[in-house]
Amino acid sequence: MDLSTSQPAPAEDRPKVARRTLLGSAAAVATVAGAAGFAGRSVVGAAPASRSGGADEAQARDLARKMLMVGEDEQQDLKLDYLRILIDDKLPPRAPRKKVLVVGAGVAGMTAARLLKQAGHEVVVIEANGNRVGGRVKTFKGVFEDKQLHAEAGAMRLPDFHPMVLALADKLGLKRRLFYNADVTPGASAAGTVPPVVYRSFTGETWSNGEASAFSAPTANFRTKISVNGTQTTRAAYAGSPRAVNNSFGTDLDGTVSAAVSKAFERVSVPGDAKIADQLSAWAEIFEKYDGHSTHRFLTEEAGWDLARIQAAGTLENMTSRLHYSLVPTLIDHAVISPTNRYWELEGGTAVLTDALAKDLTNDLRLGRRMTRLVQSETGVTIETMAESGDEESCDGAPIGPVETFEGDYAIITIPFSALRFCSIEPLMSYEKRRAVTELHYDSATKVLLEFKHRFWEEGPNGFTGGGCVSDSPSRFTYFPSHSPDGSSGGVVLAAYTWSDDAMRWDSLTPGERYAFALNDMEKLFGRQVREQFTGVGATQSWARARYALGEAVMFTPGQLHELHPASRTVEGRVHFAGEHTSLKPAWIEGALESAVRAFLEVHPR
Amino acid sequence: MDLSTSQPAPAEDRPKVARRTLLGSAAAVATVAGAAGFAGRSVVGAAPASRSGGADEAQARDLARKMLMVGEDEQQDLKLDYLRILIDDKLPPRAPRKKVLVVGAGVAGMTAARLLKQAGHEVVVIEANGNRVGGRVKTFKGVFEDKQLHAEAGAMRLPDFHPMVLALADKLGLKRRLFYNADVTPGASAAGTVPPVVYRSFTGETWSNGEASAFSAPTANFRTKISVNGTQTTRAAYAGSPRAVNNSFGTDLDGTVSAAVSKAFERVSVPGDAKIADQLSAWAEIFEKYDGHSTHRFLTEEAGWDLARIQAAGTLENMTSRLHYSLVPTLIDHAVISPTNRYWELEGGTAVLTDALAKDLTNDLRLGRRMTRLVQSETGVTIETMAESGDEESCDGAPIGPVETFEGDYAIITIPFSALRFCSIEPLMSYEKRRAVTELHYDSATKVLLEFKHRFWEEGPNGFTGGGCVSDSPSRFTYFPSHSPDGSSGGVVLAAYTWSDDAMRWDSLTPGERYAFALNDMEKLFGRQVREQFTGVGATQSWARARYALGEAVMFTPGQLHELHPASRTVEGRVHFAGEHTSLKPAWIEGALESAVRAFLEVHPR
Repeated sequence: MDLSTSQPAPAEDRPKVARRTLLGSAAAVATVAGAAGFAGRSVVGAAPASRSGGADEAQARDLARKMLMVGEDEQQDLKLDYLRILIDDKLPPRAPRKKVLVVGAGVAGMTAARLLKQAGHEVVVIEANGNRVGGRVKTFKGVFEDKQLHAEAGAMRLPDFHPMVLALADKLGLKRRLFYNADVTPGASAAGTVPPVVYRSFTGETWSNGEASAFSAPTANFRTKISVNGTQTTRAAYAGSPRAVNNSFGTDLDGTVSAAVSKAFERVSVPGDAKIADQLSAWAEIFEKYDGHSTHRFLTEEAGWDLARIQAAGTLENMTSRLHYSLVPTLIDHAVISPTNRYWELEGGTAVLTDALAKDLTNDLRLGRRMTRLVQSETGVTIETMAESGDEESCDGAPIGPVETFEGDYAIITIPFSALRFCSIEPLMSYEKRRAVTELHYDSATKVLLEFKHRFWEEGPNGFTGGGCVSDSPSRFTYFPSHSPDGSSGGVVLAAYTWSDDAMRWDSLTPGERYAFALNDMEKLFGRQVREQFTGVGATQSWARARYALGEAVMFTPGQLHELHPASRTVEGRVHFAGEHTSLKPAWIEGALESAVRAFLEVHPR
Repeated sequence: MDLSTSQPAPAEDRPKVARRTLLGSAAAVATVAGAAGFAGRSVVGAAPASRSGGADEAQARDLARKMLMVGEDEQQDLKLDYLRILIDDKLPPRAPRKKVLVVGAGVAGMTAARLLKQAGHEVVVIEANGNRVGGRVKTFKGVFEDKQLHAEAGAMRLPDFHPMVLALADKLGLKRRLFYNADVTPGASAAGTVPPVVYRSFTGETWSNGEASAFSAPTANFRTKISVNGTQTTRAAYAGSPRAVNNSFGTDLDGTVSAAVSKAFERVSVPGDAKIADQLSAWAEIFEKYDGHSTHRFLTEEAGWDLARIQAAGTLENMTSRLHYSLVPTLIDHAVISPTNRYWELEGGTAVLTDALAKDLTNDLRLGRRMTRLVQSETGVTIETMAESGDEESCDGAPIGPVETFEGDYAIITIPFSALRFCSIEPLMSYEKRRAVTELHYDSATKVLLEFKHRFWEEGPNGFTGGGCVSDSPSRFTYFPSHSPDGSSGGVVLAAYTWSDDAMRWDSLTPGERYAFALNDMEKLFGRQVREQFTGVGATQSWARARYALGEAVMFTPGQLHELHPASRTVEGRVHFAGEHTSLKPAWIEGALESAVRAFLEVHPR
């Protein structure tokens, strides 16, 4: 039985935000990149931008190909190729052995390094963080009162429409289980065997990593709460009768705001099951016309929305804090929404993935070395690094000597451009690359996690497991654990999950203040009991304040997709680039993986 | 002799950014506010926004009046009235004595409290910070190796076009001296007596606080540097021959980018010396048409600029990191630019102003109490506060009991909306106010200050005092002290002054890293000597990370001026609002002062 039939509740009530993992913002059906690097339109001396501030026609088509992972001939399915390389070990023909310096031990860096090793090259992976690998994949473990519990600081769910990350987890022997984006009945569980990853290519081919199996997910109840403008209801009640909540924003909209968003985006939507040529044309047209538009502009000027409706949708669908960003990520986000979407989590926490990636790299990893300078010549690349004192959260610490230098034939830089901004690169990189490093907008994302002695939200006839509440309090989105360890009665709640301006408010506060204020908001949802049930232990992650991440992920402001993204992935002499920010699935693990395979394919044959 | 003739260097080369103090972003000729509060257009159920996403006609006219400080009859000059109240002690007729709780001991809170006391009322000023008053006015003192030196964490210059703050400083007996936005010859000094403040009203009246005096400022040389795209020149050389620098961005623009910006904004500029009725009409039209536009949109779609030109102007004129914000603050900013603008600083640092304001409030100030809850009834206001442990920079600390409660007849809330977001207000405030509290965008601003043993930049034939360099390095803008204490050979350089996305990059780093990276950038400008001259002592301020400020100041994203600003200042029962964010000079001390007088005039007669 498929999840699409087992979760029959109103499709329009499924929270869009739920699809976003930390590596997981406004991401895409498919991504980027041919093995040969970006076609490299020069930005210097470019023709004046079109009147709409969007991309020109050729550029838009190129971006559409890259987003949909279609080769330049518009026949080749790059995603299928990449699955075969990454999962089926179908590596390209042998090439001269070389030494490659990989900067950053996140998903992109470690994946590129593993492929290079597998293909017979020597790698050194240089990582600034002295305590862990993984980058923006990070699991809080052993920090709660109940040592069995863990919680995610970063990426927390893997969507069904991202085959590479799911298949990689399977290949590494990791166990996945459902992540309940929408709440289920406490005690309910999935029936059958975890199904294999299936990818149906537009070429007609189907890729899979196993035999089909019977599997069914528990039914979603939508008992989680909506708490706005002083009123409270459940998601199910809102879907059944949306007017009261809508009226509290001053809009007389009849249906749910989610349905209204779908309607507004109808004529700029691209069905994922359309012919690939039609998808390419449709996306190219969108990029051409709308990359210069903000979501706010589209809703006011094209959809004719009034402020009340924008604020209602903004609050319930997590659009408020990003209204001034480009419309394009919002459209892409919307395009991949489907009632049949299913999400997974990894047993033991998402960091089991990056820990597993690191296992084969033990002798190749150099932790605690921050790149400060890169010099390339006609024959090789030299990277200077410094060690650092202090903590990961940017409260204290400074670079400390001595400099350690690494030499290689080539380099793959996977660190965020926000971090690369502080490295000296000699000779200067191309103008376009430098602008991308300087200007690409990085979003904020902040989590506040609170540990409770008992899972009180699971009790009573309205109890629920998993899913998330939405409110107009500072906490905005509150998520509950999908699974709990045997014998543990407690649980860690993601009490506040915020992005952009919503997150910036929390970023100004100390951890202790964040716990206190998130608990206040929990009390508004669940009453006085939250204070008795709180163990006093919390954990919090501000990605904007994280010393080695320097932001959550790339989020385009209007125009940046065509003005800056193309240069993010171009090769600079012997230096190549990977990471979510070089993909057209920014913020997703899948984007990091796609970029890693691309960079591997660039470097290997050189 | 007037500064306009004594600083004859190319007007278009004067750095726009220089006009922004911390309390001082994209501010205005004049501000906001009638004594009776905002006309209060309801946002709930508002008509759909116009096609351009701008304000409607009546709303736009109202905003223009508030920005230009013109009464509803369009005859009254509110700025003139406010000067007479604040400076000349011409208070309104006596009114029933009442007790007013003022939340926040920054410029707005302390000024409102002083006026209320002067008018015979009882005040209690509640301030979260346990160590100091002043808010975003903050001077680093006694932290450098040379104890004579000080430097500004926040507001650092007071423009000639802000009469209230200058006259208030004079009235408090503080000494002002020129702040050199553009560099002068080392050793040069102003001649004559510091002139009085003169305000010429559109009513024909002239207000002044003293006798005219002979005064002349030293000539600006524009020897400070421009360092972009691997090339280096001086501001004077660029003004004389702009092509090489322009070409390095890929634009073949003939003149300076500053001149190009002026040309692009020509038809949306409002001369400050036009008839007031014409100014009102012109600004109203701009708000109506352009509040929904970002600067990026205007430059690409209306001015027809290509990316190269946008990046050149963005880099040299400090527009890059704010291209996605509303065009309106940029236009306002541009409108007040004039070659005759002069800036002042206060001897001893800007905090002498807020220290002086606090002097008469010694018995009325309650430091170290953070408001957590406000309850109002038909008869009064109750404010609950908690003390806190920890530091000002949000690294550690949490709320600590016990709760202390204050009772009053009325309250004036002056804390940033980003801070108010975490307070429980009962009963709920109006929908419009809650949206303004939730959504108004707060900008980031970050300073990195480095102390040097000798003022090496003042030496040699190209030496200079004051002014600032601009570069495309992470540090972006580097400012030098205008004055140095007698007998001190050292100086504190504002090595990196950044906003918005440029600032966010720094906000992720520890103080130690910031000093190291800012020193790297200084080395690119001045060579190896900076390392020998650095005393090893720095100071840094990230306003986005500041625990009680929660951001630098309000910066509108497209639409926020008409969608959210109006509600920022409306009265909620017995609760009134002041602070820069309630003015139409957000980020400036002048805006905070205007809002304080307005709030005083609202509360006094009740």
